[in-house]
Amino acid sequence: MTVSSYPSTPTTGHLFGLGVGPGDPELITVKSLRVLQSCPVVAYFAAAKRESNARRVVSGYLSSDQCELRLTYPITTEAVPHGRTYDGMLAEFYDASAQQVAEVLDRGCDVAVLCEGDPFFYGSYMYLHSRLAHRYPTEVVPGVTSILAGAAVIGEPLVSRDEELTVLSGVLPIDELEARLRRSDAAVVMKLGRNLAKVRTAIERAGLLGRAHYVERATTADQRILPLAEVDAATVPYFSLVVIPSDTARSR
Amino acid sequence: MTVSSYPSTPTTGHLFGLGVGPGDPELITVKSLRVLQSCPVVAYFAAAKRESNARRVVSGYLSSDQCELRLTYPITTEAVPHGRTYDGMLAEFYDASAQQVAEVLDRGCDVAVLCEGDPFFYGSYMYLHSRLAHRYPTEVVPGVTSILAGAAVIGEPLVSRDEELTVLSGVLPIDELEARLRRSDAAVVMKLGRNLAKVRTAIERAGLLGRAHYVERATTADQRILPLAEVDAATVPYFSLVVIPSDTARSR
Repeated sequence: MTVSSYPSTPTTGHLFGLGVGPGDPELITVKSLRVLQSCPVVAYFAAAKRESNARRVVSGYLSSDQCELRLTYPITTEAVPHGRTYDGMLAEFYDASAQQVAEVLDRGCDVAVLCEGDPFFYGSYMYLHSRLAHRYPTEVVPGVTSILAGAAVIGEPLVSRDEELTVLSGVLPIDELEARLRRSDAAVVMKLGRNLAKVRTAIERAGLLGRAHYVERATTADQRILPLAEVDAATVPYFSLVVIPSDTARSR
Repeated sequence: MTVSSYPSTPTTGHLFGLGVGPGDPELITVKSLRVLQSCPVVAYFAAAKRESNARRVVSGYLSSDQCELRLTYPITTEAVPHGRTYDGMLAEFYDASAQQVAEVLDRGCDVAVLCEGDPFFYGSYMYLHSRLAHRYPTEVVPGVTSILAGAAVIGEPLVSRDEELTVLSGVLPIDELEARLRRSDAAVVMKLGRNLAKVRTAIERAGLLGRAHYVERATTADQRILPLAEVDAATVPYFSLVVIPSDTARSR
């Protein structure tokens, strides 16, 4: 079934940003599952030649009469053509993606946009939200984030009582990482990949290596959990985490 | 049905820390719901003479053959007897609560401990976890936190790309709050209650009042969302939030 086969209707469809959780299909919420199964069109971002992680999470919940709108990234950071910028090409891609979704909504069909974790927590859904939420009835359904899935599989409380939690990106400069890690009671560093060695050095300098856990694909069959000190930096995907639970929460 | 009516069995029960999400019963995960309905005993903390928030979330999912183990806090901060400390009395209460749960587990019954939001994110479940997880088979099922429910109902992305998110407690001193808020791209301040006026002043000094949202009981029928500037400080419960979304995420 293709999108163009839907009839036009006088009212527009609803846009849903659906958190599908961290990986285990059972960690979707009852609401996201209900909305997902009620939508004739299911949209998601994906890298070229790769399966979408969010789609993989819900693959068992989709039915054959749902139409899929795959929004495939045109480029990677490594392959930007001469005279173009990565950000510029991405902005064009998000504009075109929003236009595709808008055409479905204009036909009166509801669209579920799948988001790994939570739509508003570092999610690419926000690029559609900023372009469409003021034009169509829109609802965001929150989801379980990878950081709390990480804490759950480690089995240590992340943060308690009056403590501070800081969530950082691994792309930050090493001195920035170290300074911010020193200030916080508990921390999560996202977006590791090629940043792993730098992130680990910053954590070591901050005196936190002993309680830093490496977590990859938490709650899926491919889950890997290791002390950060033991991770081979060559094997680390971009979507992995370091979780540094509060030192005191575990012994409350 | 009382706990003592369960027969002894040679193997112990499983302990489950179940995130039940922020308030809307549909924002429980499929897994938490399944585990909840499989457990003969359901435990939760509650203040004296008050309904447990976590129990209220799942009340429609419980069946009459499930036994409830209510763990009622003995005191409030206002009423600590002479010669005792609040922390000391709480520690005794958590010890006794863990003992009650252990007795059920020793009879071979699985126990689901209900946790509003997520068990390892500022949750009181951790007081049972630290006392029991090394003695019984234990699993934590993560949940949707109030901070992402807050972002969803406001309708603004919380944090994006390489930004930092900071989660703070409203009990911090005003200068600490201001300094930490100034450093972060996005922030959430929890545990407002009587701290509201102080928190608001810190946010104003940090230049963030214009994008600070007050959120109370997000995703429930009693939800209140207001610009922080308009909130009457006298009407603010302890379990309410200020959400300060990233300034740039909304226009990505």
